Amino acid sequence: MLNFECDYLEGAHPRILEKLMETNMEKTSGYGQDPYTESAAQKILAACECPAGEVRFLVGGTQANATVINSILHTSEGVIAADTGHISTHEAGAIEAGGHKVLTIPQVDGKLTAAGITAYMQAFLADASHTHMPQPGMVYVSHPTEYGTLYSKAELEAIHDVCHEYDLPLFLDGARLGYGLAAVDTDVTLPVIAKNCDVFYIGGTKVGAMFGEAVVVTKANRIKHFFTTIKQNGALLAKGRMLGIQFDVLFTNDLYMDISAHAIRLAEKLKANLREKGYQFFFESPTNQQFVILENSAMQALSEKAKFSVWEPFDDTHTVVRFATSWATEEQDLDDLLALL
Amino acid sequence: MLNFECDYLEGAHPRILEKLMETNMEKTSGYGQDPYTESAAQKILAACECPAGEVRFLVGGTQANATVINSILHTSEGVIAADTGHISTHEAGAIEAGGHKVLTIPQVDGKLTAAGITAYMQAFLADASHTHMPQPGMVYVSHPTEYGTLYSKAELEAIHDVCHEYDLPLFLDGARLGYGLAAVDTDVTLPVIAKNCDVFYIGGTKVGAMFGEAVVVTKANRIKHFFTTIKQNGALLAKGRMLGIQFDVLFTNDLYMDISAHAIRLAEKLKANLREKGYQFFFESPTNQQFVILENSAMQALSEKAKFSVWEPFDDTHTVVRFATSWATEEQDLDDLLALL
Amino acid sequence: MLNFECDYLEGAHPRILEKLMETNMEKTSGYGQDPYTESAAQKILAACECPAGEVRFLVGGTQANATVINSILHTSEGVIAADTGHISTHEAGAIEAGGHKVLTIPQVDGKLTAAGITAYMQAFLADASHTHMPQPGMVYVSHPTEYGTLYSKAELEAIHDVCHEYDLPLFLDGARLGYGLAAVDTDVTLPVIAKNCDVFYIGGTKVGAMFGEAVVVTKANRIKHFFTTIKQNGALLAKGRMLGIQFDVLFTNDLYMDISAHAIRLAEKLKANLREKGYQFFFESPTNQQFVILENSAMQALSEKAKFSVWEPFDDTHTVVRFATSWATEEQDLDDLLALL
Amino acid sequence: MLNFECDYLEGAHPRILEKLMETNMEKTSGYGQDPYTESAAQKILAACECPAGEVRFLVGGTQANATVINSILHTSEGVIAADTGHISTHEAGAIEAGGHKVLTIPQVDGKLTAAGITAYMQAFLADASHTHMPQPGMVYVSHPTEYGTLYSKAELEAIHDVCHEYDLPLFLDGARLGYGLAAVDTDVTLPVIAKNCDVFYIGGTKVGAMFGEAVVVTKANRIKHFFTTIKQNGALLAKGRMLGIQFDVLFTNDLYMDISAHAIRLAEKLKANLREKGYQFFFESPTNQQFVILENSAMQALSEKAKFSVWEPFDDTHTVVRFATSWATEEQDLDDLLALL
Repeated sequence: MLNFECDYLEGAHPRILEKLMETNMEKTSGYGQDPYTESAAQKILAACECPAGEVRFLVGGTQANATVINSILHTSEGVIAADTGHISTHEAGAIEAGGHKVLTIPQVDGKLTAAGITAYMQAFLADASHTHMPQPGMVYVSHPTEYGTLYSKAELEAIHDVCHEYDLPLFLDGARLGYGLAAVDTDVTLPVIAKNCDVFYIGGTKVGAMFGEAVVVTKANRIKHFFTTIKQNGALLAKGRMLGIQFDVLFTNDLYMDISAHAIRLAEKLKANLREKGYQFFFESPTNQQFVILENSAMQALSEKAKFSVWEPFDDTHTVVRFATSWATEEQDLDDLLALL
Repeated sequence: MLNFECDYLEGAHPRILEKLMETNMEKTSGYGQDPYTESAAQKILAACECPAGEVRFLVGGTQANATVINSILHTSEGVIAADTGHISTHEAGAIEAGGHKVLTIPQVDGKLTAAGITAYMQAFLADASHTHMPQPGMVYVSHPTEYGTLYSKAELEAIHDVCHEYDLPLFLDGARLGYGLAAVDTDVTLPVIAKNCDVFYIGGTKVGAMFGEAVVVTKANRIKHFFTTIKQNGALLAKGRMLGIQFDVLFTNDLYMDISAHAIRLAEKLKANLREKGYQFFFESPTNQQFVILENSAMQALSEKAKFSVWEPFDDTHTVVRFATSWATEEQDLDDLLALL
Repeated sequence: MLNFECDYLEGAHPRILEKLMETNMEKTSGYGQDPYTESAAQKILAACECPAGEVRFLVGGTQANATVINSILHTSEGVIAADTGHISTHEAGAIEAGGHKVLTIPQVDGKLTAAGITAYMQAFLADASHTHMPQPGMVYVSHPTEYGTLYSKAELEAIHDVCHEYDLPLFLDGARLGYGLAAVDTDVTLPVIAKNCDVFYIGGTKVGAMFGEAVVVTKANRIKHFFTTIKQNGALLAKGRMLGIQFDVLFTNDLYMDISAHAIRLAEKLKANLREKGYQFFFESPTNQQFVILENSAMQALSEKAKFSVWEPFDDTHTVVRFATSWATEEQDLDDLLALL
Repeated sequence: MLNFECDYLEGAHPRILEKLMETNMEKTSGYGQDPYTESAAQKILAACECPAGEVRFLVGGTQANATVINSILHTSEGVIAADTGHISTHEAGAIEAGGHKVLTIPQVDGKLTAAGITAYMQAFLADASHTHMPQPGMVYVSHPTEYGTLYSKAELEAIHDVCHEYDLPLFLDGARLGYGLAAVDTDVTLPVIAKNCDVFYIGGTKVGAMFGEAVVVTKANRIKHFFTTIKQNGALLAKGRMLGIQFDVLFTNDLYMDISAHAIRLAEKLKANLREKGYQFFFESPTNQQFVILENSAMQALSEKAKFSVWEPFDDTHTVVRFATSWATEEQDLDDLLALL
């Protein structure tokens, strides 16, 4: 059975496993106080051209989102996000469990816009009862978004400017960041992100790691007692070097970018092939998630030979489905899938 | 440099790494919906003689404690624990961050006692203003305790009875459970624990796994929406099979017990040797943590050749230090340590 | 200056002040353990034909909402509400601060509908990832709504039935309940509410009291440790009899209904008069809040002689404004207002 | 039956009731946006010689404590308090419900000491695992304490200095502040408190008001979004002027000090009389709460004619009881009590 259901089906990139094997019986201190973690952090700051920053390695995305947002917001504040943002939908109320409301703005292609945030803030401040509402305290974007779309550099800068104007820290969820950075026409690089965001994370779980997200705070100590907050959120891995080693490998010899580029190449192949065959796409996605509209009986037939995600109904006879490629997708599998479509 | 600082210095047991390697490129569903996780859960329930139970795999101890306690307590309730309990001291306020007070009782050899809980509850209920206080809603014990000590079967049953009398669910933190189960004279087994506790967890991080704790709810569905609460606490691993595989290996061919027994054998050797040499122990510990009183200059000298944990001052000229053995300790290292002492 | 801005402009009904004066130097126990509180609770249960219920007196509405919702929900759960519900908008994130998401459904005339809740629950349960979302744990309605509209008995019963089907406790926010009960054609009475809701409150702050909301739990002890949760939420008044006395007076000789009926009579007069003059209403409201569409320059002129609430723009040249009558509105003031319009 | 059980047995000072009566039908805006609240705030800032401060009126003590502490602490932080502090004991876990641990230090005469805080902070920072613990984020003291004792000006200044050294905001709970200010030999005045604390409150509930606590932030805007946090904590009174009027009356013509002095005069009379009769006091209290050791059968006999608080057993045949005087205590009642003793 072919499987394009998501981008976290397999274990870890072989080079990571090798390194874990190789270092397995070394004895190091816990909680990220080890040389692998230090090395990984330095490589990431270098890749981000952000020497004044600080890197912390957390285990997963929901955990990273909740920990960062809890660390930054005042009790009276909420976080602005697209209504399709991961924190708005599929994190089981983790942000609210930390005491904060997610303040949603309708998405445009899965994204927030500078104009949308400005309009939101102007309406908020113009509302005579705005002191009776949760105060907007930061902005959350995902890049790539939940729909596989990307911000351009100009869009990100415009959002940064609005955030600065309203004194809102900007936080970027990069659970699939590699696939965004490796997209064909993007002008958004790690340094661009580091320059425009207060905090962001570089996703490992979906991009070659067994687990792990590298949280970059672009100005060290910007977040008060960040280590303690990580511990408090149950997000501090005892054997911290397991995270350090993984990211050290990913940020050695461009591995992170290379494996991301592989996923993108296959996604572009799928896109070109299906477009040629006349398939319609629900979103114009430049990344590893492709949202295709299938006729329902064709979808049914396909589902006997391949796994994919059923996204939402398109109309009475069609459905939007998602195919995801990843660092681990084999080209032969893709060819087999395309032969079926 | 010798290192007896703690029991989570190394990676994972080689058999675990092998299995991770072997299964690495398989494609499975996420979030614990995979055959390895199912297999591990079944093996654990069998080992616990608890077929009606439910097992969930979480990443770490603080996370497991916070998630379970949050899942069980009503907003008005707190959790009873020894004042030396891990949740009382070194979890960065994770329980309070979830909204609940840790209600501490002075420890006796690191333990709660049935009499102590009874006295606490009687005093609480006798206090005319007890409705103005957080209501005791569950009891937390660690086994082994933070001091390496163990409950006997009779002690655990007595606590179970008191808990039952006052309608307090009993939760056992088994971060080092293997070392407790493998102790020389213990009569506490997994089935004994399963019979007396509502929830407990079997520690992996400190007993052979790279990370992971297996939470056993002894009556399935005892905890409302437990999966969602795990997700909400940022404790749901996307590639859940990484946890399943580790515990599946640990609960195959008695590996968990074998590697625990190894640590205990070395701890007993250390104990016998040092006792013979006239050293004094701060606690009578039957497990892998040994608390020894060292003369300060001797301690200083030792610290140049071996790492250990400095626990607390004993008197003006002596200090309590902790040596920890583990599944990974090599006997030669122990012999070298003993030669230095 | 005339003032129709809201229904909490004045102090308390004179009979309440008299009673406070009369009893002022009596000595009673605190925290609601006094005969006035007991008497008020009994009168309310009698009025609700709900002898098995339990009544607690809290100070304000946001406090009552947060306390009740915190008391009922599991940590994994959120509360279903109309997107215009008070808890969704103007309570400064109090529900989220308690750890729970407000799960909004689009309002219909300010109301939830049984069909809307059913559709929401069906879509939720049909969503393959619904265990990754906050679980719906109760339903919140306001009656009258934030738009002055009312549920009919049939609508309330239908919502009750849906709630029962999905095991969702039903909570009714009656901050303006008197004005709903006294509306001209309503068939919703206190016993109807008590029969269909698990918890509701009878608003005092906006209906004759200086402050205070009477929370009715329709089955006593339905809420675990409710007294303690009230205290924990900072909602327990030390001199509790101040609340008891106010509600005792309000529920003696039908005062609550009489003063509510006064407000309704004046609202109906306003409605009839303005309709005759050709004014358009934004909502068909049977209660004390009337939403009228004014031409902007007329609104400007009026604002120099009368206060009212500016609700929202209607179109480029018109605005929706709210006039509120209350137990304290003098008929002459209304006549003066009508003369201005 | 005589009643010396506590200091919140009666309603409000008659002058307050008169003013409430007199202003009852005035129409003012809600939420503290009224001239009475403004006037009260100005009078309080003047009395505190703290023109740059900000005053907010809340309803009760637990509410004020939770709101202020939640407003100031970062999520990773806890609040230092005496183990007998009100927030440590009788607030139903309100601080923990807000996510923060109460970090207790053993009391000395019900008080914290500068030396105690210093020792706590030094030990905390010296602990190698202190980043795994809740971070001390502020200091809470009560004045008078729960035992009726008082800080001297020098003690308060010393605590202020320690707080400043460790960057810990100092918060003073003045639920019974009047009785502290009016004590015979105190050198602590409102300006002394304002100079040494970041936030404090002036208790109304126990000192002449029907309810209400005046929170003084000694530098305006020191607390981010304080109004919104008050609302979020359910602590914003809709008819805010009820609080403003009460404090405006209390701070007109020295009423607050006069009625406090009355309670102190009677407490001193009780103390002198009982001392003369050979009674022993459990604490040397200079305020309105007197803790007396009674022989058990004498206590029993007294309890048939007078109410008082049973504090704790002293020994097998004696008990500590508390007699509280207040603004409302009549001298004849005290004389009758003394006749019985």
